[in-house]
Amino acid sequence: MSRSQRWSTPAADALRVDPGFRLADIDTRSTPGYDGDKDDGKADLDAGREPLEDLQERLFAESVAGTATGSVLLVLQAMDTAGKGGIVRHVVGAVDPQGVELASFKKPTAEELAHDFLWRIEKRLPNTGHIGVFDRSHYEDVLIGRVRSLAPADEIDRRYGAVVAFEAQAAEMGIRVVKVMLHISKDEQRERLAKRLERPDKHWKYNPSDVDERELWDDYMDAYQVAIERTSTPVAPWHVVPADRKWYARLAVQQLLIDALVDIDPQWPAADYDVEVERRRLAES
Amino acid sequence: MSRSQRWSTPAADALRVDPGFRLADIDTRSTPGYDGDKDDGKADLDAGREPLEDLQERLFAESVAGTATGSVLLVLQAMDTAGKGGIVRHVVGAVDPQGVELASFKKPTAEELAHDFLWRIEKRLPNTGHIGVFDRSHYEDVLIGRVRSLAPADEIDRRYGAVVAFEAQAAEMGIRVVKVMLHISKDEQRERLAKRLERPDKHWKYNPSDVDERELWDDYMDAYQVAIERTSTPVAPWHVVPADRKWYARLAVQQLLIDALVDIDPQWPAADYDVEVERRRLAES
Repeated sequence: MSRSQRWSTPAADALRVDPGFRLADIDTRSTPGYDGDKDDGKADLDAGREPLEDLQERLFAESVAGTATGSVLLVLQAMDTAGKGGIVRHVVGAVDPQGVELASFKKPTAEELAHDFLWRIEKRLPNTGHIGVFDRSHYEDVLIGRVRSLAPADEIDRRYGAVVAFEAQAAEMGIRVVKVMLHISKDEQRERLAKRLERPDKHWKYNPSDVDERELWDDYMDAYQVAIERTSTPVAPWHVVPADRKWYARLAVQQLLIDALVDIDPQWPAADYDVEVERRRLAES
Repeated sequence: MSRSQRWSTPAADALRVDPGFRLADIDTRSTPGYDGDKDDGKADLDAGREPLEDLQERLFAESVAGTATGSVLLVLQAMDTAGKGGIVRHVVGAVDPQGVELASFKKPTAEELAHDFLWRIEKRLPNTGHIGVFDRSHYEDVLIGRVRSLAPADEIDRRYGAVVAFEAQAAEMGIRVVKVMLHISKDEQRERLAKRLERPDKHWKYNPSDVDERELWDDYMDAYQVAIERTSTPVAPWHVVPADRKWYARLAVQQLLIDALVDIDPQWPAADYDVEVERRRLAES
């Protein structure tokens, strides 16, 4: 219904990881499934706003009417500067804020650390009829958690299985779990960080620890490889989205959201009142 | 900085209620302070997106840097169909979702009813550096609460003072409290409800109880009059926004938000690191 002809393969198919995938083999400047250039991509992103808005409004209408059974959870994971914020702003930002539940997961608090790592996550699962967005997520606990040894190795190891079980349960509840890793190259990150240093209005986005994390780039890539391998399931698949080209990443995630909503297939709720009777009552009021 | 020449009087001044104001005297089709027509208004709404986004991003930057001291709370109250949803979508929806905290207050739950009426409200006050939006609010407890006698008269009476104290405390915390009543006429509401009955894709927005509430229109207007009189204060003033013309209401609320942000005057945070040192570290990383 809503896919540009320039998608030779649906984004979900082009980006979903297969068994045996290797992160290291993915070209971060590529545009899987899409044959257009930057201008095409921007035009298609614009064109995708209306179907996305329409589907989201139908879903929200179902939630108001009490007929909704599904929701969407977009999980965004990435190295710094990969463009999570841009996705939230330019893709998610196009739909009615009333239907969106955005959760940004920062460094866990002392209270959060005193609980299982999924404790703070579970509370933020989207309500039925809504689009939830996780800006970072429970995956931090097997990414930085692994790279920085923030938990014992056997606890990290346990978490992969716990995540799979947790997401399967979410899917059982009707949540379409769409997991996205925005994948940039180490060089692209350097360029983006350098731009933040150039402009005083971007200084706040830079943190010296960003460079410390770069030293561990390969360890992070290993942690992503393992996490994606061990937690990509049919009901909660991972998509690795090459993100050196921001326009492509935004377009691709928009398509993934549209596909998830089309899968839910939300319908305008039927009136649970007599329309003719109400017309008369209203006219007399 | 960001106000169209077509504003002969700043929106805040044109819309803020004065002592002795009478809701019944306000023309719901008027466009106080603004000399343009619908096309002008739409152009000015578009033109206002950029300054609003810029101010919001500065505020958000301050929150990330830990230098923020202020936040904004937009309180939206209105009769049904007056356009709260359109404000959220077209005005608030223009800024980065990461910086917005939207709270929609429905009919209180049993748990909420077991607490003071402000209990559920206080928890949703915006965090420093954010824009909070209340879609309905604690004012329901002196509006429908009064009209439908949901609490004893002396309790309703106590609430006005409690609200004033609560909002004064919020203002002390740096929250710019911007209270807006979107004001439509009873006839305009009938037309808007009729449109919902005409279109199957709008049926979900209609509820037979909407007509029941219309029977109490005058009681609601009285309740608004009293609530606005008793709770409009210098630190948390009420603005009555004529809303029969949607374009005007959206433009006016956008201006009120911009004014509140200009008052906070958020600044790009200065780097708390040595930019030159970081450039070298980054280049070597």
